[in-house]
Amino acid sequence: MTPRLFIDVPLSAGTSVELDADRAHYLRDVLRLAAGATVLLFNGHDGEWRGAIESVGKRAVTLRVDSQTRPQEREPDLWLCFAPVKKARLDFIAEKATELGASVLQPVMTKHTAVTRVNLGRLRANAIEAAEQTERLTVPEIREPVTLERLIAAWPRDRHLLLADESGGGAPIAQCLGGLEPAAAPWAVLTGPEGGFAREELDAIGSLPNVHPVGLGPRILRADTAIVAALAVWQAVLGDWRDAPRQAAGSHESAFTQP
Amino acid sequence: MTPRLFIDVPLSAGTSVELDADRAHYLRDVLRLAAGATVLLFNGHDGEWRGAIESVGKRAVTLRVDSQTRPQEREPDLWLCFAPVKKARLDFIAEKATELGASVLQPVMTKHTAVTRVNLGRLRANAIEAAEQTERLTVPEIREPVTLERLIAAWPRDRHLLLADESGGGAPIAQCLGGLEPAAAPWAVLTGPEGGFAREELDAIGSLPNVHPVGLGPRILRADTAIVAALAVWQAVLGDWRDAPRQAAGSHESAFTQP
Repeated sequence: MTPRLFIDVPLSAGTSVELDADRAHYLRDVLRLAAGATVLLFNGHDGEWRGAIESVGKRAVTLRVDSQTRPQEREPDLWLCFAPVKKARLDFIAEKATELGASVLQPVMTKHTAVTRVNLGRLRANAIEAAEQTERLTVPEIREPVTLERLIAAWPRDRHLLLADESGGGAPIAQCLGGLEPAAAPWAVLTGPEGGFAREELDAIGSLPNVHPVGLGPRILRADTAIVAALAVWQAVLGDWRDAPRQAAGSHESAFTQP
Repeated sequence: MTPRLFIDVPLSAGTSVELDADRAHYLRDVLRLAAGATVLLFNGHDGEWRGAIESVGKRAVTLRVDSQTRPQEREPDLWLCFAPVKKARLDFIAEKATELGASVLQPVMTKHTAVTRVNLGRLRANAIEAAEQTERLTVPEIREPVTLERLIAAWPRDRHLLLADESGGGAPIAQCLGGLEPAAAPWAVLTGPEGGFAREELDAIGSLPNVHPVGLGPRILRADTAIVAALAVWQAVLGDWRDAPRQAAGSHESAFTQP
C-alpha cells in the first residue's frame, strides 16, 4: 500500500519537500523505502498529490511532488465539542472523529469534567494519523480547551448544535435530524463528561438559537461511544454519507482498513 | 454509584447468591464494600434486581436478592457478524457493540481475514463489563467463529442483512434504511476485514434474499469504526433509538458514563 502523508507545506508539481525527522524515520527505517518509491501527500487545502522519494540520507529524506491525484473537496463543516475523558479514550475520540469527518475538535470543560489537562499535541498526532489512513484531504483543527460558559458566550448563532442529551429531554436522534434540511448550515455535536451535564448547563445550552437536544437510545452510552454514534448518525442523515459511495480505487473489492 | 453485576443464576426475591472469585474480589477488595451494601443484579432474562451483600468472607461473598427494579424488556434482534481484527480493537468492538445493543457477536472468517484465533472468553468478559455499565438487561451471545461460506449456507432467510460494502456498490446507509419498515424482522450487520471482502464473497453475500449493501460515506473507515457506525445508524433509524429516551433515573442530569 502506498504511504499517505499529511505535510504542512504548499503542494504543487515539481516542488521538493524535506520531511521532518519523524516522517523521515518512518519512510526510511520503518517502511524501508528507497529513492524512487511512491508516496501520496496532502496538506489540507491543495488536494492529494503523488510524489516520489528523491533522496534518503541519514539526516534527511526529501520528496519530489509530481501530480495531483485528487482535487480538494468541500467537506462538512461539523465541529465536535466534547468534554475530555481519560487518555486512552481521548486517543480513540481523536481517531474516530477524524474518520467520521469532524472538522474541528474542541475540548470543553464542564462542571462535572474530571480531566483537567488535555495533551493537544497527542490529540493532533492521532488526528493526523487517522486522516492519513482514512483518505481524508484535511486534518481536523484542534482547538485549545474552553469552558462551557465561554463556548456558549461565543457561540456563532447560525451554527446548529446537536446536543447529546442523556437526561432524557431530547427527541430520538433520527427523528430530530430527519426533519431538517441536509446540511447547508454549519453544525456542531456537543457531548458531556462522565458525570453528565449539570441542569444549569443544559439550560444554558438550551438558550442557544439552533440547538437540537437528542437522545441516543435506552442504554447508557460511554462518552466516547456517544461521540462516535452522534457523528455517524449526523453524517448518515445530514452529512456527506448521503452522497453515492465513491467506487473503491482500482479494485472491485471493499476497502475497510485497520492498523 | 451502585455496582451492577451480571450473574448467570436465576433471580427472585429472597434468593441467596454466592459470587464467583472475581466478583467477590471486586466487591470486597476493589470497591471495599461491607455487608449491607446495595448491588444491582441482572442475568439476561429475569430483569434487574436490587440486592444487598449478606456476608463478606475471605473465600466467599454472598448476596441476598431483594426486589425487582426493572422488568425484562424486549430488545432488538440484531446480530453483529464481523471479520475479527487485532486484539485491542477486538476489545473495543465487543464493548461498543454491547453498548449499541447487538444481540449476538459472530466472528466470521473471510478470505482476507488476517486474524486466525479469537479469544472468546475475552470477548465475553468485555461484553459483560459493557452490559453492566450500559444498563443493558442482557449480554450479547458470543458465538464460535465460522467461515463466511458456512455463515451464508446456514443463513436464516427471514433475517435482513445490512452489508457494510466499501466496494462502492451499496446505497447511502440512511437512504437504504429509511425506506424500510422499523424492525419487526430480525436483522444482522456484516462487516469485513482489513483487506475487504473478495469479489466472490460479495457475490455470495449478494445472493441472500434480504441483503442490503450500504456505503458509509466517502472516507475509508477502519473495520471497527464501520461496525460502530453501522450499528448506531441502524439503531437510530430502525432500532430502539426510535423510542422516546428513558428519563435519567433519580436526576435531571444527563448520564453519560465512562470507565
